[in-house]
Amino acid sequence: MNNVVDLNCDMGESFGAYQLGRDSEVLQFVTSANIACGFHAGDPATMRKTVKLALDHGVALGAHPGLQDLVGFGRRDMDLSAQEAYDIVVYQIGALWGFVHAQGAKLQHVKAHGSLYNMAARNAGLAEAIAEAVYKVDPELILFGLAGSELIEAGQKAGLRTASEVFSDRTYQSDGLLTSRRLPDALITDEEQSVKQVIRMVAEGKVLSQQNVDVAIQADTICIHGDGVHAVEFAGKIRSSLTSAGITVQSAGITLGQQA
Amino acid sequence: MNNVVDLNCDMGESFGAYQLGRDSEVLQFVTSANIACGFHAGDPATMRKTVKLALDHGVALGAHPGLQDLVGFGRRDMDLSAQEAYDIVVYQIGALWGFVHAQGAKLQHVKAHGSLYNMAARNAGLAEAIAEAVYKVDPELILFGLAGSELIEAGQKAGLRTASEVFSDRTYQSDGLLTSRRLPDALITDEEQSVKQVIRMVAEGKVLSQQNVDVAIQADTICIHGDGVHAVEFAGKIRSSLTSAGITVQSAGITLGQQA
Amino acid sequence: MNNVVDLNCDMGESFGAYQLGRDSEVLQFVTSANIACGFHAGDPATMRKTVKLALDHGVALGAHPGLQDLVGFGRRDMDLSAQEAYDIVVYQIGALWGFVHAQGAKLQHVKAHGSLYNMAARNAGLAEAIAEAVYKVDPELILFGLAGSELIEAGQKAGLRTASEVFSDRTYQSDGLLTSRRLPDALITDEEQSVKQVIRMVAEGKVLSQQNVDVAIQADTICIHGDGVHAVEFAGKIRSSLTSAGITVQSAGITLGQQA
Amino acid sequence: MNNVVDLNCDMGESFGAYQLGRDSEVLQFVTSANIACGFHAGDPATMRKTVKLALDHGVALGAHPGLQDLVGFGRRDMDLSAQEAYDIVVYQIGALWGFVHAQGAKLQHVKAHGSLYNMAARNAGLAEAIAEAVYKVDPELILFGLAGSELIEAGQKAGLRTASEVFSDRTYQSDGLLTSRRLPDALITDEEQSVKQVIRMVAEGKVLSQQNVDVAIQADTICIHGDGVHAVEFAGKIRSSLTSAGITVQSAGITLGQQA
Repeated sequence: MNNVVDLNCDMGESFGAYQLGRDSEVLQFVTSANIACGFHAGDPATMRKTVKLALDHGVALGAHPGLQDLVGFGRRDMDLSAQEAYDIVVYQIGALWGFVHAQGAKLQHVKAHGSLYNMAARNAGLAEAIAEAVYKVDPELILFGLAGSELIEAGQKAGLRTASEVFSDRTYQSDGLLTSRRLPDALITDEEQSVKQVIRMVAEGKVLSQQNVDVAIQADTICIHGDGVHAVEFAGKIRSSLTSAGITVQSAGITLGQQA
Repeated sequence: MNNVVDLNCDMGESFGAYQLGRDSEVLQFVTSANIACGFHAGDPATMRKTVKLALDHGVALGAHPGLQDLVGFGRRDMDLSAQEAYDIVVYQIGALWGFVHAQGAKLQHVKAHGSLYNMAARNAGLAEAIAEAVYKVDPELILFGLAGSELIEAGQKAGLRTASEVFSDRTYQSDGLLTSRRLPDALITDEEQSVKQVIRMVAEGKVLSQQNVDVAIQADTICIHGDGVHAVEFAGKIRSSLTSAGITVQSAGITLGQQA
Repeated sequence: MNNVVDLNCDMGESFGAYQLGRDSEVLQFVTSANIACGFHAGDPATMRKTVKLALDHGVALGAHPGLQDLVGFGRRDMDLSAQEAYDIVVYQIGALWGFVHAQGAKLQHVKAHGSLYNMAARNAGLAEAIAEAVYKVDPELILFGLAGSELIEAGQKAGLRTASEVFSDRTYQSDGLLTSRRLPDALITDEEQSVKQVIRMVAEGKVLSQQNVDVAIQADTICIHGDGVHAVEFAGKIRSSLTSAGITVQSAGITLGQQA
Repeated sequence: MNNVVDLNCDMGESFGAYQLGRDSEVLQFVTSANIACGFHAGDPATMRKTVKLALDHGVALGAHPGLQDLVGFGRRDMDLSAQEAYDIVVYQIGALWGFVHAQGAKLQHVKAHGSLYNMAARNAGLAEAIAEAVYKVDPELILFGLAGSELIEAGQKAGLRTASEVFSDRTYQSDGLLTSRRLPDALITDEEQSVKQVIRMVAEGKVLSQQNVDVAIQADTICIHGDGVHAVEFAGKIRSSLTSAGITVQSAGITLGQQA
C-alpha cells in the first residue's frame, strides 16, 4: 500500500525519418521517461532530443534497452543467452548515459523493453543478467520490472532499488501476474474500470484477479502508453484521478530517495 | 620534440561470428587501445571482452567511434552533418563507457575511426562537433587526431587535452599532412625506413616530406596496425627501436597527467 | 513534346512498426509505383503488401533501390564505388522481384532513391554501374532518371528503355537540371505555378529556367510526392489538370510498349 | 537407398571486411552451394563473387536465407510468425536471384540457415510458410531440408521437389532426427566413423541410432562444413570415399531432373 506512485511511459521511439509517439504531450503527465536506446527503436539524434525534452518537462530519465530487432520493434522473443542479455543492456544504458551526461543530468532508472522485459519477468537467468548489468554500470540506478516478476527479485538480490510496475489496462491472474495477451480477457478497455483498478492497486495494494480473488500487488510505478488515439488523454485522466484519490504522483527516484 | 610517446592500435573490431585482428598479441606492445563501438565494427560482447583484455595487459582504454556503415567498415565518406557527427560520437563513447565502468575502469581517450577521422581532419565543422561531443561526455578525455589536423585544433579550442598522431608507414607532404592513399608513394613498405621516420618524428619533431623538405610535426602517439601478416612483429620492432633510442613508451594519459 | 505522361510516386517506405506515406490514397492517382527495397526504407512485409496494393490499383511496379542507410533514409551522399552501386542495385531489384514474381506480376521499372539518384544524375561512373545492374537483371526494365542526367544517358547507352523524370515542385536551371535545394528558389510552393510548369514540360517539352530562358526538357514521367499534408490532394489536382489539358496519363510501360 | 548423392556446403558468409570460410577450396568437392543472402551473413558484393565462384567450379546455386540477426549469425531462435518467415524467405531468394540472373545462370535450390532451418524442421507452420515462399517465387526450385523433418513434408505437400539432407558428423535418434547439440553425444568426431555412417545412409538408407536401432533415412544430399581447421580436407575425403563406394556424386538438380 502506497500513497505515492510513479507514472512511466516509453518514449524516444522515433527512428530517422520515422516518427512515433506523442512524447511532448505525454510528458506533461508522467514522472519517469523510458528512453529507447537504438536497438528496438530510437537513434542517436532521437535520444539526444528526448533527453532534452524530458529534462525540459522535469521528468526523470530512464534507459529502455531492448532486443536488437529494429524491424520487429523488440517484440519477438529471441533465444539469447544471459551473457548476451547482460551485454546488450550494458551497451544501451551506456549509450543513453552519454546523452544524459552530455546534458549535465543523471539517469534514474532502467526498464527493459518488450520481449526482453517479458522474458526477464519469467526467466531467472535473464533477470539476474539484466540486474547485474544495471548494478555494474551504476548501483544507484533503479530497476523497473513487472510486479511479482523474476526481474524484481533479481534486482533486489543484486542490491538494486526496484520499482514494481503495474498496468492499468491489463487484467491479472491469481498468481499476481498479467493475463497473457493470447487470452481474450487480457485487456481492460473500459476507462473507468482501468482507473479504479489502478487506484486500488496503489492505495490498497490489491487487485481483483480474473478468478475473482483479491491478490496482493506492489504498485510503485504505473505504465502509461504514449501511442494510440486516446493515449495522451487517458494519461491525463489517470494522473488527475490519482491526485483526486489523495495519491501523490512523483518519480520513483524521489520516493526511494538517495541511496546510502 | 618528445622523449616519450604513446603507441595506439585499433582493436575490438570483431563482430559476432567474425574474427578480425590479433588483439591479444598486439596488446603486448601498445600503450593505448582504440576500441570499436559497434557502428563500423565491434558488438557488445566484443566490447566487453576487449575492455577486459586491454585491462589485463595494462593498456589504456579509448573509444573508437566510426560511421554507421558496418558493411563498409566505416571507410566510405558520408555526407553527414556536424550534428549527426556529434550524436554518433556521444552514443558510441557512452556505449563503451558502459563496459569500462562495469569493469571498474576509466576511459582515457577518443579516436575517431576511418572516414570519420579523415573527414574531421580537414573539415572544421565536423572537427568541432566531435570535440564538443567528447568534451560534453567527459572533459577529462584525451582527443586523438592526426597531427596538424582540424581535429587537433578543435580539441584544443574546446578545452580538451589532445594527442597528435603520426603514422610510421605513411609518407608526408610539405604541409605536414599525409600523402593521399590515391597517390603511388603514400605508403612506406620498407621497415627500416618506417622505424627511422617514426623515431625522428618523436625525437626531433621533424619529418622529411615527399618534396624533400623537413617539416615540423608533433608526435604524441603512433598508430600501430593490428592486422596484416607482419603487424604484430612490426609493432614489437617499433617499440624496441623506440626504447633503444632512449624514448619512453607510455600511454598518453600518463604523459599528460591528471587534469587540474 | 508528348501527349502522354506517366505519374510516379515513391511508396512502401514504412518499416516495421513505423508507418510512412499515404500509399493507398496516392495510388488512386499515379500510374507507376517506386517501391522501397529495404535499404533506405521498407522491409519484407511492407514490400509484399505494397506490391499487392499497387496491383489492386492497377499501378505499374518499380524497384526503388537506395543507399544502405536506414537511419539517414538514403539521403546522405556516400562515397561508394561504381561496383558497390552495381551490387546494391542488383540486390534490391532482386529482392523486390521476389515479391512481384510471387504475386504473378512483372516489374516495369527501376528508379534509384535519394542520394543514389542524385549522385547518379551527375556521376557517369555510378550512372553506368546502375544502368548495367538494371540491364543485367532484366533488359526489359525501364530505367527512370532525372531528365538530362548522366543516368538517362547511361541507360540509353546500355540499351535500356528510359523514362526522363521531371518535377512539378522544383525550379530549373538553364542547363536543364534542377536548382540545388541549397538555393533559396529551389522549390515552387504555388500550386497553380506547379501545375502550369508540369503541363508545359509535357505538352511543349519546355521549361522556363530561373535565368528566364526557355530550356528543352524531356518529360516522360512526373514525380509525385506521397508525404506531406496536401500531397494526395495535389496528386489528384495534377492528374486532373493533365487530363483536362488533353494529356493521357498512363504508365511508362504502356507508352514505351513491349521491347522488340 | 540411392546410388547417387549431392554434397552441399554453406558459403558466401563473409561480410564487408570480414572473411569467413574457405569457399574456393571447398567448391572443388561439393556439388551444391548454399549462398548466404545478407540477413544472417553475406552482403551484395560477397553474393556476386560467390555466385561467380560457384559457377566457375560448375557447382549448382542455392539460396541460403536466414534470420535477420547478423550479430547472432542467424543461430538464435526467434519467435517469428509464419508470415514473417514467408516474407524473409521471398526477399532473400529474390536478392540472390538478382545476382544469379545477372550472371545468366539459374537457381537450383533453397536451404534455410541455422535457426530458421531448425525451427522449420519441427514447426509445421513455419515449414509450410517457407515451402510456400519457395514455390511462389519459382516452383522449379528444389527445397533442401532435414531428412524426416516437417520442412520436407511441407515442401512435398506444396508441390516442390525436395532433397532430404543428412549429416556426416552428427548422431541420430531412433525417430530419425538428429541428437540435440545439448546432449554430450551429438557429434561424431572420428572421421572413419563419419565416413562409414554417411556411406551407409546413402547406400542402404539406414543409420544406427544412439539407441542402437537401425532407422530408415532418406539421404539425397550431405551437408559439408566449410569452416573449421580440417573442413576442406574432410570434404575431399567424404567425396573420394563415396566415389570409391560406387556412389555417384552429383547435384540434386541433375538427379531430380527437369520438372514436367
